Amino acid sequence: MENELKKFDVAQLAHVEIFTPKPEETLWFFKELLGMSETAREGQSVYLRSYEDLYHHSLKVTERNEPGLGHVSWRASSKMALERRVRDLQKSGFGKGWIEGDLGHGEAYQFVTPDNHNMEILFDLEYYQPPESEKTLLKNRPQKRPNKGIPVRRIDHVNLLSSDVTVNKDFMADELGFRLREHVVKNDGSEIAAWQSVSPLVHEIAFMGDQGTAEKGLGRLHHVAFWYGFPQHLNDLSELLTENGIQIEAGPLKHGVSQALCMYVMEPGGNRIELFGDSGYLIFDPDWKPVTWTEEETERAIIFYGAPLPDSYFKYGTPLVESPVTNK
Amino acid sequence: MENELKKFDVAQLAHVEIFTPKPEETLWFFKELLGMSETAREGQSVYLRSYEDLYHHSLKVTERNEPGLGHVSWRASSKMALERRVRDLQKSGFGKGWIEGDLGHGEAYQFVTPDNHNMEILFDLEYYQPPESEKTLLKNRPQKRPNKGIPVRRIDHVNLLSSDVTVNKDFMADELGFRLREHVVKNDGSEIAAWQSVSPLVHEIAFMGDQGTAEKGLGRLHHVAFWYGFPQHLNDLSELLTENGIQIEAGPLKHGVSQALCMYVMEPGGNRIELFGDSGYLIFDPDWKPVTWTEEETERAIIFYGAPLPDSYFKYGTPLVESPVTNK
Amino acid sequence: MENELKKFDVAQLAHVEIFTPKPEETLWFFKELLGMSETAREGQSVYLRSYEDLYHHSLKVTERNEPGLGHVSWRASSKMALERRVRDLQKSGFGKGWIEGDLGHGEAYQFVTPDNHNMEILFDLEYYQPPESEKTLLKNRPQKRPNKGIPVRRIDHVNLLSSDVTVNKDFMADELGFRLREHVVKNDGSEIAAWQSVSPLVHEIAFMGDQGTAEKGLGRLHHVAFWYGFPQHLNDLSELLTENGIQIEAGPLKHGVSQALCMYVMEPGGNRIELFGDSGYLIFDPDWKPVTWTEEETERAIIFYGAPLPDSYFKYGTPLVESPVTNK
Amino acid sequence: MENELKKFDVAQLAHVEIFTPKPEETLWFFKELLGMSETAREGQSVYLRSYEDLYHHSLKVTERNEPGLGHVSWRASSKMALERRVRDLQKSGFGKGWIEGDLGHGEAYQFVTPDNHNMEILFDLEYYQPPESEKTLLKNRPQKRPNKGIPVRRIDHVNLLSSDVTVNKDFMADELGFRLREHVVKNDGSEIAAWQSVSPLVHEIAFMGDQGTAEKGLGRLHHVAFWYGFPQHLNDLSELLTENGIQIEAGPLKHGVSQALCMYVMEPGGNRIELFGDSGYLIFDPDWKPVTWTEEETERAIIFYGAPLPDSYFKYGTPLVESPVTNK
Repeated sequence: MENELKKFDVAQLAHVEIFTPKPEETLWFFKELLGMSETAREGQSVYLRSYEDLYHHSLKVTERNEPGLGHVSWRASSKMALERRVRDLQKSGFGKGWIEGDLGHGEAYQFVTPDNHNMEILFDLEYYQPPESEKTLLKNRPQKRPNKGIPVRRIDHVNLLSSDVTVNKDFMADELGFRLREHVVKNDGSEIAAWQSVSPLVHEIAFMGDQGTAEKGLGRLHHVAFWYGFPQHLNDLSELLTENGIQIEAGPLKHGVSQALCMYVMEPGGNRIELFGDSGYLIFDPDWKPVTWTEEETERAIIFYGAPLPDSYFKYGTPLVESPVTNK
Repeated sequence: MENELKKFDVAQLAHVEIFTPKPEETLWFFKELLGMSETAREGQSVYLRSYEDLYHHSLKVTERNEPGLGHVSWRASSKMALERRVRDLQKSGFGKGWIEGDLGHGEAYQFVTPDNHNMEILFDLEYYQPPESEKTLLKNRPQKRPNKGIPVRRIDHVNLLSSDVTVNKDFMADELGFRLREHVVKNDGSEIAAWQSVSPLVHEIAFMGDQGTAEKGLGRLHHVAFWYGFPQHLNDLSELLTENGIQIEAGPLKHGVSQALCMYVMEPGGNRIELFGDSGYLIFDPDWKPVTWTEEETERAIIFYGAPLPDSYFKYGTPLVESPVTNK
Repeated sequence: MENELKKFDVAQLAHVEIFTPKPEETLWFFKELLGMSETAREGQSVYLRSYEDLYHHSLKVTERNEPGLGHVSWRASSKMALERRVRDLQKSGFGKGWIEGDLGHGEAYQFVTPDNHNMEILFDLEYYQPPESEKTLLKNRPQKRPNKGIPVRRIDHVNLLSSDVTVNKDFMADELGFRLREHVVKNDGSEIAAWQSVSPLVHEIAFMGDQGTAEKGLGRLHHVAFWYGFPQHLNDLSELLTENGIQIEAGPLKHGVSQALCMYVMEPGGNRIELFGDSGYLIFDPDWKPVTWTEEETERAIIFYGAPLPDSYFKYGTPLVESPVTNK
Repeated sequence: MENELKKFDVAQLAHVEIFTPKPEETLWFFKELLGMSETAREGQSVYLRSYEDLYHHSLKVTERNEPGLGHVSWRASSKMALERRVRDLQKSGFGKGWIEGDLGHGEAYQFVTPDNHNMEILFDLEYYQPPESEKTLLKNRPQKRPNKGIPVRRIDHVNLLSSDVTVNKDFMADELGFRLREHVVKNDGSEIAAWQSVSPLVHEIAFMGDQGTAEKGLGRLHHVAFWYGFPQHLNDLSELLTENGIQIEAGPLKHGVSQALCMYVMEPGGNRIELFGDSGYLIFDPDWKPVTWTEEETERAIIFYGAPLPDSYFKYGTPLVESPVTNK
């Protein structure tokens, strides 16, 4: 039964921390353009959330001298589920130990992926309490829809660059119960990319082979994704970004993998942010067989419709690397 | 641990059977206007599916002298989960026994709700295999998007009328692990309606107090819902329906409960069908506290924006009743 | 040739003035929710424009003790066209004379409709000059898309209540060259409503029979309409309005007449504002035969899809009337 | 006054004829994917229309050994306007003479542009009469919305490749009254492209410098555009095209010029077709100053948001050329 339970032990992506060398500009981007709100500041960090994110924060922005991933935080399904996962993580050799908590949450167990992405798993966290002016009569929403920017609704997923997709994917499956939903596999059997989830979403996490560097253990971030659910909002945001001098890297376009209608943009600090404009498809089949895209099918896996992705999409990640690989 | 597992034991709504006195017109509606495809016929039944439904069928249309609900079929998360649920159902007194199967699925355990809605739970079923002409290069979709009507993507949920919401809701929770997501509660503490799910969807099932009759045990259907996910498709369908003489009962509108952008229409056989035009909101919080709408908040629970629902919405169900209650 | 030219002599709706007893709330509505910007203040008036309106203002909000229509301003196609129209207006007996101008425009000729709606026609006006921070690289747009509210793009049309639709319609046709595009005609031959335009838009002006009062010459306003062009923006605005306590009178819905996807809302001062969510249909046929909806077809003329309009839609106008007609 | 009238003498684009070497495939594309309907066949030609096109046809598809433009047909505002334009065309040296008519229209005056694109101007034409089954209760629409493909609503504009943009633009202005709305101008003063219209649309015609050949007088077609008006329909069509093996050349994307949300696709016969997904912006200002995009601003003129256009966009036209220019 413990094995049956494992795949339900992680419930969701709770929050992500990113580093930025330009905190003012990064906060302007998330607050003024994406309509996120600030819930707290402490030290070099600012805590933000989307208007349908339930908890204290879904994004922690921390000042550093270069952009990159701070950590990814997963919420367990229960205290018991948390204990089971920590037990396995401890055995795995990738566990780092408990911390007492942070603003907005209680104790959390820290660990790394084989490629050194910092993560934690927790159960206790603080629910967002809106001030009187933000209370809404829409009782299933934690606050009113914001009146600035094109406001994102919730955090969706994280995509990490890795030196070995399979190793990282297996780690998430074995220790945390993530199920493989789709992957792109080379003719030699190696995986180019893999999408995994613990819910009907196609992914809360994806790993992509890092084509920008051969160096290992950098824990590089490809992107953090926020969700709209309405296609028009990508068009609205595209106008707002363009008129405000923010470069859109790619999209709006539709991926084959996950059927996501989306776009990619670099926030001023240098981290890539994805905006998710529809609901893609949802997986309710409990016996889902992972979708395997072959090397020949890669192009369609990446783009169902829309222009091809630029080269930067495959090589650029944060933190930046000194001497990036030059051939694609 | 068995108790921990219960809430994951049912994975999804597999299919629904409806009765129709006008099979030709009903099939025209689902096939020509909603773009569903026929996968089989046997006896008085025709089997249909939406283009993203993975299995042999999601809707079984059976000829009868009056409209109504045939049965609701749930898919368990595994064979073990199926066994656990059947064991509880047998103890509950609402179990009816195993059947060998039907077109498109293997053995299933039949039972009824306290209000006599026919249901079954199963695990083994047949996946849809598209003919060559329907195969798509979008590998996470079982067939090409149809080229007629405004094609629905998948079955979403079922809404049942009941003489006692609480009793039925508790039955689904106790025997099948459904979690309460939202409900409307009168000042006397009785529930007017309840929405329950086994996934991040706000509901795969809802119960509403039957205001059309005081008779019990009729197993009446309020509606079956199919999903688009794109708001524009409700507008497109509204045009198609209006120009083809199908009356729209209500919508497009947005509910407070579930945040569903939706519309309601009677298929020619007399059953109410809901079309779901966006993704509403999804519940990933493993510790979700059900949203309680009070009697005073009912109006907002029903309509977040859009016109008030007509009286028929609260009284009309299938099968029809001889002498409906006349005061709202 | 002068007769040939007449139908091209009026080019467009330039601006509308409304009265409000609650200027602060009215301005909050237009600026914070509809994203309009203020370009000037003088005396009891504030001048506003939408972000794609080219001129100094498209809406003048003037404080008065009750809501209502200030005046409607039409722009002629040229100075010669202006002269031709003034000549005819002078002969008509409805001319009032020239004024030197107002903030944002030069000399204008004032007149009234047979039902006493104040109007003017002009040619010289001031183009909006954005401050540096509002300049956009989208050179066919006068300023950046605003970053608050759900910003309307431009003024679209005005709808006036009248004691005799035909007389007012004929006046606009005879003196100003407006072409009849659609109308609803009773079985006795009288017109219930008429939609007229000088461009491919179905209407820059409409007259509807005033069902709220039998009094004549009140110059009542039914609504002023602003344009989005994107259906999703009506949904976005509906959320914003609902969460901010502004009552939506009707919609989103689709009219038969003009095929407009739209909604109606009372601004806090009491005037009805329409928001136009798509582009309806455009009339390029130079030999267009007006579409006549019969008394029996009225329902479909009003609602192509969506809920029936509330009674207020037919009776409420500004200024308010003391003893409104009570039977519909 | 005749000069004042000139700019109103042409009312609209009536229809376009294209040549195709693959008539069956071309008709499949327009009928099954774009939802157009066939109104007549004669000789090697098939006559098609969109569901909101008012006349007998808006597209004539004629079999030829290579793709290309047959002719462009303009409708005059009146018989008098037709006479005035013909008089000027006759003087211009580009007139060819009257024809008695074609299926669906009466006499027409034929002429060519300086770059040898075949055109005609006419007034008398036949209005489409729907069969009983296609009649709609939406009285301002000539037929029901079709139930196949993603049906386009009407023809929108034509874009022609030319060896000298200025010469062709001046011809349309001088002889037919087209007003310049936007253009892209090199630093040496030569025009790269120009958009002209006779209505509030930004263009019914555009000329772009032919970068695919230096040969003159080929009368090459860049594209014919059909209009949806709803952004989602571009996404829907993209799915349908991709799953049916039709290559999308570019988009969905948003141009700076005309603010058009659009996409480009080659119909199976080889002609480029544009699909227009919103309403862009409309020009009502009678004193509109053409928007001039400089050489440096070209990129933004072409793409407001979305990926850069592929090289083919600038070089490919029909008829094809033997030895295309190879440097961009």
